[in-house]
Amino acid sequence: MATTRFTPRDHDADMLYKELAEHDLQPLWELPGLLTVQPRPRAVPCVWHAGDLARLAGEAGELIPVERGGDRRVLACANPGLRGDPYIVSTLWAAVQFLKPGEVAPAHRHTPAALRFVLEGDGVWTVVDGDAIPMSAGDLILTPSWTFHEHHNSGEAAMMWLDVLDLPLVAALDAVFYQDGPSDDVRINTPESSRSETRYGAGPGLLPGRAAPEPSAASPLLAFRWAATDRALTAQLADGAAPAHIRYANPATGGDVMPTMRCEMFRYSSGFPSPRSRQTGGRVGCVLHGSGVVTIGDTEFSVAPGDILAIPSWQAMTVTAAEEIDLFITSDAPVLTALGLYREESAP
Amino acid sequence: MATTRFTPRDHDADMLYKELAEHDLQPLWELPGLLTVQPRPRAVPCVWHAGDLARLAGEAGELIPVERGGDRRVLACANPGLRGDPYIVSTLWAAVQFLKPGEVAPAHRHTPAALRFVLEGDGVWTVVDGDAIPMSAGDLILTPSWTFHEHHNSGEAAMMWLDVLDLPLVAALDAVFYQDGPSDDVRINTPESSRSETRYGAGPGLLPGRAAPEPSAASPLLAFRWAATDRALTAQLADGAAPAHIRYANPATGGDVMPTMRCEMFRYSSGFPSPRSRQTGGRVGCVLHGSGVVTIGDTEFSVAPGDILAIPSWQAMTVTAAEEIDLFITSDAPVLTALGLYREESAP
Amino acid sequence: MATTRFTPRDHDADMLYKELAEHDLQPLWELPGLLTVQPRPRAVPCVWHAGDLARLAGEAGELIPVERGGDRRVLACANPGLRGDPYIVSTLWAAVQFLKPGEVAPAHRHTPAALRFVLEGDGVWTVVDGDAIPMSAGDLILTPSWTFHEHHNSGEAAMMWLDVLDLPLVAALDAVFYQDGPSDDVRINTPESSRSETRYGAGPGLLPGRAAPEPSAASPLLAFRWAATDRALTAQLADGAAPAHIRYANPATGGDVMPTMRCEMFRYSSGFPSPRSRQTGGRVGCVLHGSGVVTIGDTEFSVAPGDILAIPSWQAMTVTAAEEIDLFITSDAPVLTALGLYREESAP
Amino acid sequence: MATTRFTPRDHDADMLYKELAEHDLQPLWELPGLLTVQPRPRAVPCVWHAGDLARLAGEAGELIPVERGGDRRVLACANPGLRGDPYIVSTLWAAVQFLKPGEVAPAHRHTPAALRFVLEGDGVWTVVDGDAIPMSAGDLILTPSWTFHEHHNSGEAAMMWLDVLDLPLVAALDAVFYQDGPSDDVRINTPESSRSETRYGAGPGLLPGRAAPEPSAASPLLAFRWAATDRALTAQLADGAAPAHIRYANPATGGDVMPTMRCEMFRYSSGFPSPRSRQTGGRVGCVLHGSGVVTIGDTEFSVAPGDILAIPSWQAMTVTAAEEIDLFITSDAPVLTALGLYREESAP
Repeated sequence: MATTRFTPRDHDADMLYKELAEHDLQPLWELPGLLTVQPRPRAVPCVWHAGDLARLAGEAGELIPVERGGDRRVLACANPGLRGDPYIVSTLWAAVQFLKPGEVAPAHRHTPAALRFVLEGDGVWTVVDGDAIPMSAGDLILTPSWTFHEHHNSGEAAMMWLDVLDLPLVAALDAVFYQDGPSDDVRINTPESSRSETRYGAGPGLLPGRAAPEPSAASPLLAFRWAATDRALTAQLADGAAPAHIRYANPATGGDVMPTMRCEMFRYSSGFPSPRSRQTGGRVGCVLHGSGVVTIGDTEFSVAPGDILAIPSWQAMTVTAAEEIDLFITSDAPVLTALGLYREESAP
Repeated sequence: MATTRFTPRDHDADMLYKELAEHDLQPLWELPGLLTVQPRPRAVPCVWHAGDLARLAGEAGELIPVERGGDRRVLACANPGLRGDPYIVSTLWAAVQFLKPGEVAPAHRHTPAALRFVLEGDGVWTVVDGDAIPMSAGDLILTPSWTFHEHHNSGEAAMMWLDVLDLPLVAALDAVFYQDGPSDDVRINTPESSRSETRYGAGPGLLPGRAAPEPSAASPLLAFRWAATDRALTAQLADGAAPAHIRYANPATGGDVMPTMRCEMFRYSSGFPSPRSRQTGGRVGCVLHGSGVVTIGDTEFSVAPGDILAIPSWQAMTVTAAEEIDLFITSDAPVLTALGLYREESAP
Repeated sequence: MATTRFTPRDHDADMLYKELAEHDLQPLWELPGLLTVQPRPRAVPCVWHAGDLARLAGEAGELIPVERGGDRRVLACANPGLRGDPYIVSTLWAAVQFLKPGEVAPAHRHTPAALRFVLEGDGVWTVVDGDAIPMSAGDLILTPSWTFHEHHNSGEAAMMWLDVLDLPLVAALDAVFYQDGPSDDVRINTPESSRSETRYGAGPGLLPGRAAPEPSAASPLLAFRWAATDRALTAQLADGAAPAHIRYANPATGGDVMPTMRCEMFRYSSGFPSPRSRQTGGRVGCVLHGSGVVTIGDTEFSVAPGDILAIPSWQAMTVTAAEEIDLFITSDAPVLTALGLYREESAP
Repeated sequence: MATTRFTPRDHDADMLYKELAEHDLQPLWELPGLLTVQPRPRAVPCVWHAGDLARLAGEAGELIPVERGGDRRVLACANPGLRGDPYIVSTLWAAVQFLKPGEVAPAHRHTPAALRFVLEGDGVWTVVDGDAIPMSAGDLILTPSWTFHEHHNSGEAAMMWLDVLDLPLVAALDAVFYQDGPSDDVRINTPESSRSETRYGAGPGLLPGRAAPEPSAASPLLAFRWAATDRALTAQLADGAAPAHIRYANPATGGDVMPTMRCEMFRYSSGFPSPRSRQTGGRVGCVLHGSGVVTIGDTEFSVAPGDILAIPSWQAMTVTAAEEIDLFITSDAPVLTALGLYREESAP
């Protein structure tokens, strides 16, 4: 159906087509390419290198203030296959955010959900609905849909991290709402630990006895610290996993951390390629440690810490570490799963 | 954030922007309109009138054969706000399909799910994974994701019905798969009742004792007959509902009939306007009986049986029946609900 | 462990045992029979014949008024294996209730859930939380946990039906609560159809569009009519089922009609025995139509319409119909399933 | 209904009663006490003191070997209200188990689920389906339904811990199955950490990426260590909780650790009584640290570390710590919740 079609190029058909167009109708038999044998994402495999990102973010830091009116100093990875849309894959926005010492990115909220994955440094606090959360390298921080969030750099150095949002998906669903936060709520309030970790972070399988019903399906634990993730990966490798593979989960349900985004961390030992597989849905990769080659579809990318990868739907991926690689992956897999559209397979 | 922005139009910034573009990066502060205060769908409220649809489908029936290579004689409602995309709202495809006596639309399957809503007549059988289902006026017939389906007109007259698919959504998720069916399986096998109704259709709350695990979350009952729907609406009106409002459900779970599409039927009594409300997500309306005025956003549409309506996200709707209206609505509400993005409210 | 044990019958042990008893302690090694290789229910297979039930209920009707103080004219099947407890199997109470013309069994409610299965006749209305439900032969009527219920015989003849409650289970869980209803609410209010059927009974897969959140997991549809059940069984037999087997379900969830009781209807064609199988949990059978032999464990029972059967846990059952048998079964299967304790198997 | 009844003590009634008894029928109106206004558990509030338990377990250790034939050296708390049944409340078995250095309690499995709560010491390994788990003071160890389990004391000293099983519940449901383990599998295999903790124990919200579907709803994490529990309680107290209250959870679902037993830990600060409340279902308490007074119903119990408490259904409880108390509680709350029978309230 995708490749052949019936085209009666005579006078009567032309008349019909003209009249159809006048009535906002299109004939299916003239619409090849709607139903393809397998997914044909417009986004292409792609890498953004840490060095470029750091240099350009630094230059932006010199030129562009973070103030009401700008709100965020963010550089979005624009997949070259998406014809100018500022999205890394069809359903995800990925960007680096850069904040200098003393700067504050003021509070706002929106229905698109966001996550921060910290590549280097510390000193920044993200405040989520009033809960101040310190950010350090390797940490995953959540700002679920419609939670107020702001960023404060109370440290000595500029800091940069990866932001990923489900913005293109929420936009495609015509469900974007946005609201500014109270502009005077910019005090830096930095307790030793976030309230979310006090309540949900003491250990696996320990929940508050009287857990308040959460307003959404998002994880009530908003920070996942690198130390614990590292411990889990180390234990898995010792147990024979290849690669080690952690899924970040809502501790109150075991489900994904947010209804629209799955977060995972992989550790690839050096010396041999990982199994080659593909799955439906778009993914964003981010190298935390290590180096080597990541193959996406037919393209090979040399990667180093801080590099960001676009992995479009149904593109097979394999990783070959020169030096042990820790790779953070976030994807729209919960969406595809909820809708009965998730597929994965070993790829040739 | 949506309306104001910081724009340092000096030489250094221009240099930075140029370099960003070379590295496939876009500065957020130059991207107004990404985060809007409320949804701004590109699709606009719209109506396709039954008379036009019947006349043009009939003309297509004269000119365009249904054969392998074309597969379906279908006219898609192309929302004028969507700049040429053949979609009725952002996430849904709606079209009329026309099949003449003796014609067969051959078997195929695809991951986009489809439903048929019959506006008039009978004589057509839709075969879903080998189960032959007769179609008559007012019936809702499902062909869930990845089920083989074909249509046979074994009647005396041409027949036309409404097709709705979640094609734009599945395409946006890069999850379209397609497969032709076996070409020789075109016998017309027409038992008195479909197997799906034999197993699930005897009455409310009666399930097969040994229900086989269903392969997906789609309803195992594939046909919802008008007689029962009419009975339910009549009972609700007698019970004081205004309007009467039925949600078609998977009898084995109570959930929506397919993971991506909600189906509902409303009966509006004549004489007074229905409450005005709006909700996130796109909807398609189809008038089965009656006449009156449907207001979507700021636009009033006079409607009659067979008319098809585009109701974009967050556009308030109200119905004022001159003659009692039965209105079929299908929407992406299950998607928005699953992702925590569903909102609805009374509208001013 | 069940059969052998260590028993040091010397002086020191005797002293220890004495002291243990004084401290309310019991030594496990002196407790054979706690952990058995397979279930050893105390209840035994048993039948109560319709003729006896009708005669004795009629005599009770002559002697015992139904009034506040007595509330219900009910004869409970007391399994002879349960040593005087008025229960038919370990977890279920089964009884016949008898109501004469003009009599009213006044309103009360309790946490044990109840169902009525009507063996013959009509004219009685059960009012459940204000919803008046007529009862006729073959109907299943629910009074879920903690719903007020009362019975009115507005007909010309006495009527008798089967009551089943999860009373022994709720008692074993120390969770029985009871409350009298308002004594003056004894008007006979008999609309043509119950509100529960108006809202949920029009057809399979048709739910109210704005279903109110139900207070419990019990079915909002409270009456399952014989005509629909009969239709479902007939369709299954025509489709090759042997036996035909329906599970009554909550139309809003597909789950069992109440959290503690599964209800099923089987139709056995005459001429050959059904497959022999067994399952954990206690069951109550009730013959609606037909005759033949039911074998439970090693015992054969000749059955006729109106007979009631006790089928204890893990006792294999088979049915051989002389004349096509319709057999209603209710069980605690949802409890065992929820707790991970349900097992079933073909039995030798 | 519970207190008054109609009793026609005349000749005809006597004849009827006699005939009913002959037919295994009991008249409801002669069965007072079946439906009580609120739960009336037979079990009574009770305490077993640590000193007695240790002394008597030690004596049993001198007299009773642990060998095939005895399997377990266990002293069961027999609630004096339960008339000789060896159960602590209606639905739960609680006991102390005592194992001397070098002893092995051999492998078996049963459908009743069990948990161990360690009061003092270490050196014992429990092997669950081949996974060796070390036990130390304050740890909670699970042996879910139908998992093989054995205990090895490889330490220098005898060790004693609390066992709780849902045995009375599973027995009441006629669902007890039992099987001996392979007798030669008594090697002591003691890796540094259990496989269950390697996979699920690294931190909150970190799950194996490819979690194998678990055979039951029981937690795949089988050991909950005191260090993490203590940390969680400390954080809650600092956050203002009174008392601190943790629910042990299945990290893969957030549900209770086993389908039939909830486990909780409370920390009561000294100086003021806790809120008084009651709930349906039976509970077992065990004091890990601290001292004070526990009031259950109308009875006050002075408690010290190692004491075991019986808290019957619907008995109000309050705790007044002289010295900060850590109180472990296990209950049948998941059962009552699953069946719609759970109630709790502040008590007068």
